[in-house]
Amino acid sequence: MEASATMLPLSQVPRFFPHKPNRSKLACPPCGPSKPRRTSLPSRLHCQKMYVPGFGEASPEAKAANNLHSFFTYIAVRIVTAQLESYNPEAYEEMMEFLSKNSLNDGDQFCANLMRESSRHNALALRILEVRSAYCKNDFEWDNLKRLAFKMVDESNTRLMRDYVLEISHVEGEGK
Amino acid sequence: MEASATMLPLSQVPRFFPHKPNRSKLACPPCGPSKPRRTSLPSRLHCQKMYVPGFGEASPEAKAANNLHSFFTYIAVRIVTAQLESYNPEAYEEMMEFLSKNSLNDGDQFCANLMRESSRHNALALRILEVRSAYCKNDFEWDNLKRLAFKMVDESNTRLMRDYVLEISHVEGEGK
Repeated sequence: MEASATMLPLSQVPRFFPHKPNRSKLACPPCGPSKPRRTSLPSRLHCQKMYVPGFGEASPEAKAANNLHSFFTYIAVRIVTAQLESYNPEAYEEMMEFLSKNSLNDGDQFCANLMRESSRHNALALRILEVRSAYCKNDFEWDNLKRLAFKMVDESNTRLMRDYVLEISHVEGEGK
Repeated sequence: MEASATMLPLSQVPRFFPHKPNRSKLACPPCGPSKPRRTSLPSRLHCQKMYVPGFGEASPEAKAANNLHSFFTYIAVRIVTAQLESYNPEAYEEMMEFLSKNSLNDGDQFCANLMRESSRHNALALRILEVRSAYCKNDFEWDNLKRLAFKMVDESNTRLMRDYVLEISHVEGEGK
């Protein structure tokens, strides 16, 4: 099972943003015509929401969804590989070998390559596509994600402010 | 505004996973006691959900939420910096200088450092904390995120399978 650790090198984990920033998009004025969140409607109507610069035509939601898409592919590969390991050692070895040679940075490209490797690999690829769809739609707990994110931001903000205040009051205490 | 492109180097964008994989967790058997999704309950009760290996005590939702937390901090910094640029060039310059010296890989650490830089930086840090909370809870469209992720997985799966079938049928067509 040690192999699982090498199965998906951390360098393969996708990032939120493209490797080259679109500087022309960054130059858009706040609430300008290419306001990220609503490119199809006059931005004036949407200035009740904070302007998020630098996302060009895409919205932060689209960026996050794209990142989650890669995450789901990564998870589907792990699910299928774990299943294979438990009842099909031969296919597991083939999968591990393929994983060692193909990057998961681009999950769709990985699946495309897997489909074309051999008929057996093709069957595995179709299973990965099926699993990532089922995981995304049935297993992944979207409400839990939202709840955890809310909790995380509240707890982090509280901790940061508390630690700062404690630090300051401590310094002042010594000063007296 | 060119500076905005350098504001947040892409190398600072957070990743989904810790830099060191927990190999011992990877070795857990499917549906074993440390099944990621339900560590507090007997895993047998939850085997209707696919086993996702390699997440140790954390769930995929927690990993995704943690990644979104960093994403929201990144967005809050961009929002605040864009606001400063439009009406407080001096604070904007200070912020840009701080950003050039401090990594956003760890958003919370970034905020902690910003709070301690100076009283003016502290005010900016508190605003970033406020903005990331407000963005996460009010502006970020969670339903849209889910909708886009569903759409993305359906479209990607269809495209991958269609392209493969077209390729195969084309090859077979040539073969005749």
